[in-house]
Amino acid sequence: MAKDLVILAYSGGLDTSCILKWLIQKNYEVVCYMADVGQNEDFKKAKEKAMAVGAKDVIVEDLRKEFVSNYMLPAVQMGLVYESRYYLGTSLARPCISVGLVNAAKKLGAKYISHGATGKGNDQVRFELSVYSLWPEGKVIAPWRLPEFFERFQGRSDLIEFAKQENIPVSATPKEPWSTDENIMHISYESGVLEDPGAIPPNGIFKITRDLRQAEDYPSAIDINFEKGLPVSVRIPSGHEKSLVLTDPLAIVETLNKLGGQHGVGRIDIVENRFLGLKSRGLYETPAGTVLHVAHVDLEAYALDKEVLRVKKYLQEKMADFVYNGFWFSPEAAYTRKCLEWSQETVNGMVTVQIYKGNVTILARKSSASLYNKDLVSMDVAGGFSPEDSTGFININALRLKEYARFSKQSK
Amino acid sequence: MAKDLVILAYSGGLDTSCILKWLIQKNYEVVCYMADVGQNEDFKKAKEKAMAVGAKDVIVEDLRKEFVSNYMLPAVQMGLVYESRYYLGTSLARPCISVGLVNAAKKLGAKYISHGATGKGNDQVRFELSVYSLWPEGKVIAPWRLPEFFERFQGRSDLIEFAKQENIPVSATPKEPWSTDENIMHISYESGVLEDPGAIPPNGIFKITRDLRQAEDYPSAIDINFEKGLPVSVRIPSGHEKSLVLTDPLAIVETLNKLGGQHGVGRIDIVENRFLGLKSRGLYETPAGTVLHVAHVDLEAYALDKEVLRVKKYLQEKMADFVYNGFWFSPEAAYTRKCLEWSQETVNGMVTVQIYKGNVTILARKSSASLYNKDLVSMDVAGGFSPEDSTGFININALRLKEYARFSKQSK
Amino acid sequence: MAKDLVILAYSGGLDTSCILKWLIQKNYEVVCYMADVGQNEDFKKAKEKAMAVGAKDVIVEDLRKEFVSNYMLPAVQMGLVYESRYYLGTSLARPCISVGLVNAAKKLGAKYISHGATGKGNDQVRFELSVYSLWPEGKVIAPWRLPEFFERFQGRSDLIEFAKQENIPVSATPKEPWSTDENIMHISYESGVLEDPGAIPPNGIFKITRDLRQAEDYPSAIDINFEKGLPVSVRIPSGHEKSLVLTDPLAIVETLNKLGGQHGVGRIDIVENRFLGLKSRGLYETPAGTVLHVAHVDLEAYALDKEVLRVKKYLQEKMADFVYNGFWFSPEAAYTRKCLEWSQETVNGMVTVQIYKGNVTILARKSSASLYNKDLVSMDVAGGFSPEDSTGFININALRLKEYARFSKQSK
Amino acid sequence: MAKDLVILAYSGGLDTSCILKWLIQKNYEVVCYMADVGQNEDFKKAKEKAMAVGAKDVIVEDLRKEFVSNYMLPAVQMGLVYESRYYLGTSLARPCISVGLVNAAKKLGAKYISHGATGKGNDQVRFELSVYSLWPEGKVIAPWRLPEFFERFQGRSDLIEFAKQENIPVSATPKEPWSTDENIMHISYESGVLEDPGAIPPNGIFKITRDLRQAEDYPSAIDINFEKGLPVSVRIPSGHEKSLVLTDPLAIVETLNKLGGQHGVGRIDIVENRFLGLKSRGLYETPAGTVLHVAHVDLEAYALDKEVLRVKKYLQEKMADFVYNGFWFSPEAAYTRKCLEWSQETVNGMVTVQIYKGNVTILARKSSASLYNKDLVSMDVAGGFSPEDSTGFININALRLKEYARFSKQSK
Repeated sequence: MAKDLVILAYSGGLDTSCILKWLIQKNYEVVCYMADVGQNEDFKKAKEKAMAVGAKDVIVEDLRKEFVSNYMLPAVQMGLVYESRYYLGTSLARPCISVGLVNAAKKLGAKYISHGATGKGNDQVRFELSVYSLWPEGKVIAPWRLPEFFERFQGRSDLIEFAKQENIPVSATPKEPWSTDENIMHISYESGVLEDPGAIPPNGIFKITRDLRQAEDYPSAIDINFEKGLPVSVRIPSGHEKSLVLTDPLAIVETLNKLGGQHGVGRIDIVENRFLGLKSRGLYETPAGTVLHVAHVDLEAYALDKEVLRVKKYLQEKMADFVYNGFWFSPEAAYTRKCLEWSQETVNGMVTVQIYKGNVTILARKSSASLYNKDLVSMDVAGGFSPEDSTGFININALRLKEYARFSKQSK
Repeated sequence: MAKDLVILAYSGGLDTSCILKWLIQKNYEVVCYMADVGQNEDFKKAKEKAMAVGAKDVIVEDLRKEFVSNYMLPAVQMGLVYESRYYLGTSLARPCISVGLVNAAKKLGAKYISHGATGKGNDQVRFELSVYSLWPEGKVIAPWRLPEFFERFQGRSDLIEFAKQENIPVSATPKEPWSTDENIMHISYESGVLEDPGAIPPNGIFKITRDLRQAEDYPSAIDINFEKGLPVSVRIPSGHEKSLVLTDPLAIVETLNKLGGQHGVGRIDIVENRFLGLKSRGLYETPAGTVLHVAHVDLEAYALDKEVLRVKKYLQEKMADFVYNGFWFSPEAAYTRKCLEWSQETVNGMVTVQIYKGNVTILARKSSASLYNKDLVSMDVAGGFSPEDSTGFININALRLKEYARFSKQSK
Repeated sequence: MAKDLVILAYSGGLDTSCILKWLIQKNYEVVCYMADVGQNEDFKKAKEKAMAVGAKDVIVEDLRKEFVSNYMLPAVQMGLVYESRYYLGTSLARPCISVGLVNAAKKLGAKYISHGATGKGNDQVRFELSVYSLWPEGKVIAPWRLPEFFERFQGRSDLIEFAKQENIPVSATPKEPWSTDENIMHISYESGVLEDPGAIPPNGIFKITRDLRQAEDYPSAIDINFEKGLPVSVRIPSGHEKSLVLTDPLAIVETLNKLGGQHGVGRIDIVENRFLGLKSRGLYETPAGTVLHVAHVDLEAYALDKEVLRVKKYLQEKMADFVYNGFWFSPEAAYTRKCLEWSQETVNGMVTVQIYKGNVTILARKSSASLYNKDLVSMDVAGGFSPEDSTGFININALRLKEYARFSKQSK
Repeated sequence: MAKDLVILAYSGGLDTSCILKWLIQKNYEVVCYMADVGQNEDFKKAKEKAMAVGAKDVIVEDLRKEFVSNYMLPAVQMGLVYESRYYLGTSLARPCISVGLVNAAKKLGAKYISHGATGKGNDQVRFELSVYSLWPEGKVIAPWRLPEFFERFQGRSDLIEFAKQENIPVSATPKEPWSTDENIMHISYESGVLEDPGAIPPNGIFKITRDLRQAEDYPSAIDINFEKGLPVSVRIPSGHEKSLVLTDPLAIVETLNKLGGQHGVGRIDIVENRFLGLKSRGLYETPAGTVLHVAHVDLEAYALDKEVLRVKKYLQEKMADFVYNGFWFSPEAAYTRKCLEWSQETVNGMVTVQIYKGNVTILARKSSASLYNKDLVSMDVAGGFSPEDSTGFININALRLKEYARFSKQSK
């Protein structure tokens, strides 16, 4: 009888290598799937490793453009920030990778998808809700939630033992005492020595942004153009008063990552609420994402109507929760995203920001679409404004307050 | 017949000096009221000026403690940020000053309160709504909205002309080409050359924060203690590994202003939506307020329950609008403030921040009250957690999504 | 010199007849505009009256279809209810009539639009905000807010006096001691003897719905079909087990008004908050609107995803306020309406209701689009559901609560 | 070795009788717990039955007062309605019963609580989340989610078989083809023949409310007094122009249930969204609850400030979801409830309603605390109102709209 096929979300690390072996031992045929979402990884080496362990095949798919264009930049456009601070770098990558996994599963006729996410985290939820939405008849094998697996491998040393025993190559460099998730939008750091929210993180933990004291000594000014809330071109300085204009989404993000990183832009250290109800401490660095978000917030305030901005704000808070919790592919996210995109019809224009020593400073903004009316707002120009109208406006607004004062006195 | 008494919110500047004279010419008796909310002002000189112009009396009241304890720090506690960026420094001072004006009016038996706020701005609304709430039978004279006044004084030169003619002393130093509002929480800059949102502000505009390139070369670490969401003590570095602990609210704010200013903390440049519906560009510098807000957001995320945080977030957005629009003394603000304060019962603990080159970086946080459970969240400790439960949790959450997928296929 | 032309929203009543005369005396040329939105009115007679008073012309425009298709039924679709109870019959008619007024003004080259709405009410706001949105360069003459007018005509008797003096025909039948607004969606009753919220309204006040004790003795069952949330056809009983299917929007509303009226459906007596901040008591009867809204709420709950329903609910509350306050033609209403319409893509199906003695009772609902899955929900069928999953779901949801219990004990 | 003690939520029906036996066979000691929350039940007979099956003891606790005072009436005060229509009768009883269960478990030193709720429903969640919140160290046995149990008893016939075999008395009257939950607040009907949302429910299903055609022929007028949003006394007609005043909460509810039932008040037929994501059709009858809710909504609109009402509305929607989903004992519900109660400080006064043929009609309302100002709102009295102010109010509100119109034209 033919073996059942599993598509394994493979990272090349110890966990998923052991899972690969374990699945094979459980009599599955396993095809490893590696999504390139911009992480720093030797895919060739990882592929060889998986084949050596016994994978039937290894698929490496470059999803960087897909991730930037369909997840990261729309998140900027929608203004997604989780719990006021986190730009959702990992949360956005999970549905993108899930599409790759499901496509592979459907194409190869697999019955299962498997992953190495742990049982306490958000990623298991994000992967599986995405998979089940895209492929309702699919099944997921999550070894870290199967007693048979997690009781056997109770710590890292059990995995190393198993690896040795099964001739799975183990990296010689010792693992960092925290865990990391990386993609073109951000790197996250959590668990291990970071688990204590009261402990200052060790030096040298961050990888793509410089420490502020090592950051560049001269500020860089950047022009960012938005159309319908999406960044469409970026002008960056390029030595000796020259500048470079980028329009390719991937190039925009890569370049802003590099420049932002040199200026130490985009680090945060937060305690966040996981979907499962646990609180968790995480560090994130998101250079390009931070620059783009800060610029977008500024243009939006300039270009959007006051009341539309408020309705949109509610929707963006809801959407950030949907995305964090793994509901990217859900009716509510589909609906809310549509509404948020619609709000951006007039968010067109350019924002000039300066990045320097960790700061993204707004210098100026321009938009043909703004409701800003310089004459109207000017203190020196009447501009069709009748000051007496303000008296009526204030008096009518005061009516209710005076009644309340009258009533409060009465009821004492 | 006795003249009607007017309490004039007096600043010592050209506008209110001319208004003072004009009111006297209109046959009012005028007592000038100056609130010291921390602005850089020579009150003695201003008082002499007002008396010279003909004021019956000048009251100078030190409201700094009142402003810090009852407006600024509660705003930190409530998490008030207008349109995602503005900490409401001016908006918070207006009701505080209005209390002083109304107390004076009641005490002296005045019939009117007068002010020099313009007809397009927010401040006229904030003053008058506060005054009418506190003193419903009171009346307000707003000369900049009276045709008789604003048609006569169509620009600054008309005021200067009037001042000369009436022997009102005019400052020899030329006015800056923008307008400013200052108190212990912040300084705002708007109008004039700043009116064009696409023009980079002139150098040297900011007064209490250093430019980033002139900011201190060494970071400062600060411990901030909160009780029920209010900052109650701050430990700051004080040379040679010593430190200083401050517990007086006014001293906390003054010291963080100074230190924050040295590090260039707390500047923003935004376009905001005024209550009257106009968009307006403003620059703000809020050093202490920024440090305290950033620390509070961090502690709150750590100490508050996930779902309480979300309910509180809604309330804080509403409250920020109420305050910005001038409704500090309103039934809705009274109610919402009570609810927000209640949310802070468990927001106790300490946040360590580093300030450096404009950045307020969270280093660590501690709280006896946090729902954070290191054992539970740890990847290395089971901590009473059953990984199988996550499977059920995910599957149940997927139920609705699978149904939606089924249905979407069907309806195609 | 040519006289300025005014388009007057004319009702044929005493107020607008006097205003017509007064405008003429103020040297304006006046064209009267009467919108037929379904009110019980002798337009021919009203026209003759206006011409007799001196109108240059009288335009009577049948806006019933327009009102039903573009205002009333979309309000059902969007689920608009003001302050939980009021279906916005008057609020919806105002922007519709304003379009007519503005079109007339533009076509005839008028400079002004005038109306007889009072200075304390909502309608002045709704008319004028609509007019200014559609015709920003237009001007409005609101006599009831001009001291020259309202000081001269301080009560009804002054108007009657003026009418007699100027040969304006005054109706012989004495005015009812309350005021009324009527259109095809509803009739409202307010002010006069109704002003006391503690007084039971006089008998016989309602015009299109029977008192419950006089309502029909036998219930009627009605099938209502919705497409994208809009009622598109209605089947009503038509004697001897026959039934009648209506698809014309106007016919649907007229027929449901008649049938609903016979069954005493759709009366409310409420105190509401006006935009100006006053509280006001109003009675409304909205037979067809009530039947359609009740049916729509039922279908929506059946056809919409749970979480989409919640996002939509927020939007519908906002929209109801926008419409009540007169912001139908505003950026926020345009945006929110688009979002609300989008939510209705899957709200397709049929609801069977029974109307009887004031009740609209849901009997059954059908939809090819519903996410309802009988097998899944059935207590007797497994339907792909694993009961163990619920254990995990509950346990994970309990995690946070247990932590809170632990913490609460600790902090005591 | 001593057996582990289980407290079983016992109903006297077939399911929990079989569960009782099954638990005993699994070597537990079982004490049955029956909460009297007003359901129609022969507790004595049920107790005998449980003892006969082998219960160690049976506790019957009268929680009716507790349920009415601490759950039902606060829900009226808070305005809790789930998905716009359901008054949460079952949802509110679950935490109340859970308190009883946990108290018994703690008192008797039990290790487990068990219940007969199914794996697809809401009640399992409500029971268990309440139990875990109140007793975090407790454990729950839910047989309907244990494969060992649900695979053995796949349908009602398996249970009947088991009952016969184990000499468990089975009721001779055949079970109704739907399931029912009853308490003093309501009776719910679901599943079985009701599972098809398109099928009209069978006649005679409702138990405490009369069909409309059999309802009383004469209306009853009731005065309901509220203090801080809680109904504190009710005056009902009592034959021959006499009336009866009730102040005991239990008596109020019982009497309004009886009277409301005679008038056919409080039936609904809805499709609702369960916490687990399934949609489910339910019928409810809630006579007293409906009368009280309708009256409360009316008084609240009258007594509460306009803007407070809006903030409160948001909170009440959140709270309804919390309660429906089983989070009565959660930090978010504790917090939100406190806020909601605070909103009711001024909701004092009397509402007169008429109940007749299923309708609860508001006749009048009175409140010393209302912000309603008859003089101010009156069309015939100036009341300190300046009509010119409305002009300014409208013009300022129109500013933004005119700008938008200007901009929209521009951008075409």
